[in-house]
Amino acid sequence: MRRVAIIGTGMTTFGEHWDRGFRDLVIEAGAKAIQDANLQGNEIEAGYVGTMASGRLVGQEHIGALIADYMGLNPIPITRVEGACASGGLALRQGFMAVASGMHDIVVVGGIEKMTDLGVEEVSDILGGAGDQEWELFLGATFPGLYAFMARRHMFEYKTTEEMMASVAVKNHKNGAKNKFAQFQKEISIETVLKSKVIADPLKVFDCSPITDGAAAVVLAPVELAKKYCENPIEIIASGQASDAIALHSRESLSKLRATEVAAKKAFEMAKLSPKNVDFAEVHDCFTIAEIMAVEDLGFFKKGEGGRATLDGKTALDGEIPINTSGGLKACGHPVGATGVKQVVEVTWQLQGRAEGRQVKDAEIGLTHNVGGSGATAVVHIMKRV
Amino acid sequence: MRRVAIIGTGMTTFGEHWDRGFRDLVIEAGAKAIQDANLQGNEIEAGYVGTMASGRLVGQEHIGALIADYMGLNPIPITRVEGACASGGLALRQGFMAVASGMHDIVVVGGIEKMTDLGVEEVSDILGGAGDQEWELFLGATFPGLYAFMARRHMFEYKTTEEMMASVAVKNHKNGAKNKFAQFQKEISIETVLKSKVIADPLKVFDCSPITDGAAAVVLAPVELAKKYCENPIEIIASGQASDAIALHSRESLSKLRATEVAAKKAFEMAKLSPKNVDFAEVHDCFTIAEIMAVEDLGFFKKGEGGRATLDGKTALDGEIPINTSGGLKACGHPVGATGVKQVVEVTWQLQGRAEGRQVKDAEIGLTHNVGGSGATAVVHIMKRV
Repeated sequence: MRRVAIIGTGMTTFGEHWDRGFRDLVIEAGAKAIQDANLQGNEIEAGYVGTMASGRLVGQEHIGALIADYMGLNPIPITRVEGACASGGLALRQGFMAVASGMHDIVVVGGIEKMTDLGVEEVSDILGGAGDQEWELFLGATFPGLYAFMARRHMFEYKTTEEMMASVAVKNHKNGAKNKFAQFQKEISIETVLKSKVIADPLKVFDCSPITDGAAAVVLAPVELAKKYCENPIEIIASGQASDAIALHSRESLSKLRATEVAAKKAFEMAKLSPKNVDFAEVHDCFTIAEIMAVEDLGFFKKGEGGRATLDGKTALDGEIPINTSGGLKACGHPVGATGVKQVVEVTWQLQGRAEGRQVKDAEIGLTHNVGGSGATAVVHIMKRV
Repeated sequence: MRRVAIIGTGMTTFGEHWDRGFRDLVIEAGAKAIQDANLQGNEIEAGYVGTMASGRLVGQEHIGALIADYMGLNPIPITRVEGACASGGLALRQGFMAVASGMHDIVVVGGIEKMTDLGVEEVSDILGGAGDQEWELFLGATFPGLYAFMARRHMFEYKTTEEMMASVAVKNHKNGAKNKFAQFQKEISIETVLKSKVIADPLKVFDCSPITDGAAAVVLAPVELAKKYCENPIEIIASGQASDAIALHSRESLSKLRATEVAAKKAFEMAKLSPKNVDFAEVHDCFTIAEIMAVEDLGFFKKGEGGRATLDGKTALDGEIPINTSGGLKACGHPVGATGVKQVVEVTWQLQGRAEGRQVKDAEIGLTHNVGGSGATAVVHIMKRV
């Protein structure tokens, strides 16, 4: 396989873009990434885009062709990839393989979701399509409910507390406050979280990521061409993806995500690295308990110690291993198809020293971790400077 | 890039499966393909699945994980790919790249659509998501209407007649009558077509492909491993994909599909072949006019001569270049996400001499052509015996 690097990045602000459509958002992110890579449009050979539910959210499928058209990139192939909230990470993985295989040189990868055109109940129902429609959603389960099961089990097995979960939100809001692209740029306290409205006990509204509009994009190239376009390209040194049972009731454990463990194992093997080599990471904190499980299942902390580690500041911007410097899904926002690509944009900016007020010092190796549904898909990428 | 071969194939019957669900169909096709490849489940490293609109048709997204789960293939990665009616062909292309890149050895590729759980009007609306939602569907256009525009223009420019279009349907029903997997296994006459109900003038109901449930799957492996599993593997020697404007009003011509031309050009370049080297093909005949444009735009006949060639029997089973030996979308049926994979199953069976009553004699090179929407995506694959 050829080595693959990121040579350009771009994203919209994440938030409620009531005055803008799906097409506007994806064009902005894509155009910024192409400009950042100093490319002419005719140098681009192919594209991938991650979006979860454009059919139900905006009445539009065939997203690849739509984007090729509206970005003025015809006749190049653009392909939509879907893996629920992991759609963006999976799109990156396909773009990676397209370049690694030698099929294409310059490939754009985008992620997009336009979620606020419908009411919250309808959007919740649509997001439910990421779980087992027949055995979970049809019977009334919602995503906060599914993650609440996992939170309760984690609390039971490892003495994780609501305060520890709240500390994830507090940290991520603190990081989000330093990110001008974030949906929430305001710090909060542990008390704010604990006193907020209960959504699915023990998860309160501040334990949950929001509904968000947004798009993000990166441009990929073979490492040998990367310096032609970019002074400081970032290499994707590993890609791992795995699946687990789609419904919680079929899983071996409720307090860990097996797909995360397997995807991380594959990625670390490919990179010939271990978790201790990772300097910082963007992980999938759709709920605060999800970040606690992620930092354990990725191997950054022993199983059961993720909550304590967060409360103790080990994952803060100046901690042992900064987690979710962008603000994460929790504070930066979670346009589901865009999230996996935004994570890669953030890690790229950190490694390029472009993370402004939230720059991690001396970071060499960054990791992204993107999850679909309640954990049935996980995809992990590891990046370093070329 | 590594050379890639098909080592197993499987499909469900195409038709109205009112007693079976999405999951049942995909499991049947996948299990048949895996069995055909003489594989154990644990030898499979990854999967891709093409499905257009599972979110709206069956309330389920996150299809990759769902299939990994229900096929008992966890924790391998399975990724959904969407490109409207070209979803199956795009899934094959991703599987091809996954093997070609060296990322995976054994990869299963499936295509699936379960369409008959909803009423015809709702399904038409959902299929409309393959066009430009804002500028075509929202204003009342349906797919028969869009292809009717193309038919009228083709008739105007090239003197194509309704009888020529009808001859496509007659031929494909004749082939479908020899295919036990086909939705329609009954021959029809030119008169049947011409006297059938007008859907969108000049297209009548027998000019249109049906609404169908079905699934198809193939197993891919590097050529150097293929003979370990399969006596007569079929190599994918080329893959080409291209895009065009999603809405008809933005295209340079209404009487050809530019995406087909570009995808074919790329595929022929990759295979170092020309259209005259192709012995038979499965092309995207969602409407009879679509097959006429396809055989022209792929280079099998001069522009404007596709209708006459069909009427003259040049594309019949015993003609110069047999087209749609399976019965095509028209008679075999069109479960949109499955179609692109079914085309590859048919070409594989023909090249392996397994096409029973519809076997093309001495065929060496076969081609598949899968289109999304009204032509905004096209993907072409070329195959031969290893």
